Amino acid sequence: MATSFEQLRQDNQFGVRAKIRSGAYCDHTSGLANGFLQANLVILDQSYALDFMRFCQRNPKPCPLVGVTDTGSPYMRTLGADIDIRSDVPSYHIYRHGVLDRTVSDITDLWNDQMVGFALGCSFTFEHALIRAGIPVWHIDNDRTVPMFKTNIKTIESGPFSGPMVVSMRAIQIDKLDMVRAISSNFPMAHGAPVHWGDPADIGIADLNAPDWGDAAPVGDGEIAVFWACGVTPQAAILHAKPPISITHKPGQMLITDVAEDAEIPIINPAF
Amino acid sequence: MATSFEQLRQDNQFGVRAKIRSGAYCDHTSGLANGFLQANLVILDQSYALDFMRFCQRNPKPCPLVGVTDTGSPYMRTLGADIDIRSDVPSYHIYRHGVLDRTVSDITDLWNDQMVGFALGCSFTFEHALIRAGIPVWHIDNDRTVPMFKTNIKTIESGPFSGPMVVSMRAIQIDKLDMVRAISSNFPMAHGAPVHWGDPADIGIADLNAPDWGDAAPVGDGEIAVFWACGVTPQAAILHAKPPISITHKPGQMLITDVAEDAEIPIINPAF
Repeated sequence: MATSFEQLRQDNQFGVRAKIRSGAYCDHTSGLANGFLQANLVILDQSYALDFMRFCQRNPKPCPLVGVTDTGSPYMRTLGADIDIRSDVPSYHIYRHGVLDRTVSDITDLWNDQMVGFALGCSFTFEHALIRAGIPVWHIDNDRTVPMFKTNIKTIESGPFSGPMVVSMRAIQIDKLDMVRAISSNFPMAHGAPVHWGDPADIGIADLNAPDWGDAAPVGDGEIAVFWACGVTPQAAILHAKPPISITHKPGQMLITDVAEDAEIPIINPAF
Repeated sequence: MATSFEQLRQDNQFGVRAKIRSGAYCDHTSGLANGFLQANLVILDQSYALDFMRFCQRNPKPCPLVGVTDTGSPYMRTLGADIDIRSDVPSYHIYRHGVLDRTVSDITDLWNDQMVGFALGCSFTFEHALIRAGIPVWHIDNDRTVPMFKTNIKTIESGPFSGPMVVSMRAIQIDKLDMVRAISSNFPMAHGAPVHWGDPADIGIADLNAPDWGDAAPVGDGEIAVFWACGVTPQAAILHAKPPISITHKPGQMLITDVAEDAEIPIINPAF
């Protein structure tokens, strides 16, 4: 039975994850399981895993690594007691040789014992901090997905992984810019401080109204476009690496974890 | 020609590294190249690299990963334009099957094209912040190496890597404890907030005067023993993993990088 977004808002992270796992909910996770870390997901064959981890280490602003499975294990044990990355994301993108092949809500049939899952921190964490500080976030207030753009900022390559940094854009009142930069810099596991503000052309964005992912959002009078490194960057790097198979979350539809958003480290010790 | 510590204090990071590389200086690096990030070093065969990176990701307080080489490359390009990890650390420990075999000042003859180097953040960064805040650090004032201890705190395992967390101890005035915790928590790439303070027995340390590495340091009247996760933890994990060969820095004698200690991320983009 399908579950509505409004119903899900009443649930804690276990309840939301259970409904996603059962297939009852397959949409964006912004605003759900408040207070808990959400993550971007990338799944690759082990033969690509070391190079991809190095790619994340070298590009920590777009790719803040918050969890990695053991090879062949679908359980992200350091992010929660009961997280199965084969079913716990609302929608998955399946890429073949770097090209999007299809979108599904469960990948149990595709999982094999050579796969490794990677979780990367996500902007929801600092958005919640902005909202607590009284800074409105347009795409949340208007129930859209944040606009995301490829840029001319190059990532640092690692093996076959390279390509442009992807950024997300939020319009911020000019007199709040310094405050917004300071707040977001406190969340290194959620992309940290913005990488650019002002003219989108400076970072190779031709048209703010035509995002590569997500929904367009306005920049009003007295506002400035502010750009943060984005966890969709690996999807651009996968386009370059062209692995036979790779699987990611669908942008905006994240993995919900049991880690508190304000935890010092994104780790739950499975021994306790 | 040998160079004294006092002479080296006049040099910037390039000068210090050049003298270490030439073999003119083979001692501890605390207090050298002020303002620049120093790092613990671990070198492993590629067959251990993915498990070791996962070990670091799962244990970010003892093992904050700040750099990884390409396989076979001795250059740590994201930490500096000219860092050669075969010669740029004052002294190296060579382990065979997990057991310390010998200590040398250059490993060029041991390097091969299957090796991967890992740099982990180090406590010097937050020590400098403590000193700037007027908190004395005994082992620095007395030209010793910080005392380090194995504990009963277990790391989260990854493949063959497991074992106890190693901590370093600094005696802090009790009325400064909260301030010290707050300052060090600002440096997640340098072990972050302490993991314990007070009775050493609580974390399995039997005798504060008998550190496993470094020099004993006193805890005076009105002071409390404060313990931070330590970058020597991988050396304990290597003892468990028993790789045929592994190489680390000698504790206290670190890799000096070109990354500013207060940089948002520990990355220099080699493309610029």
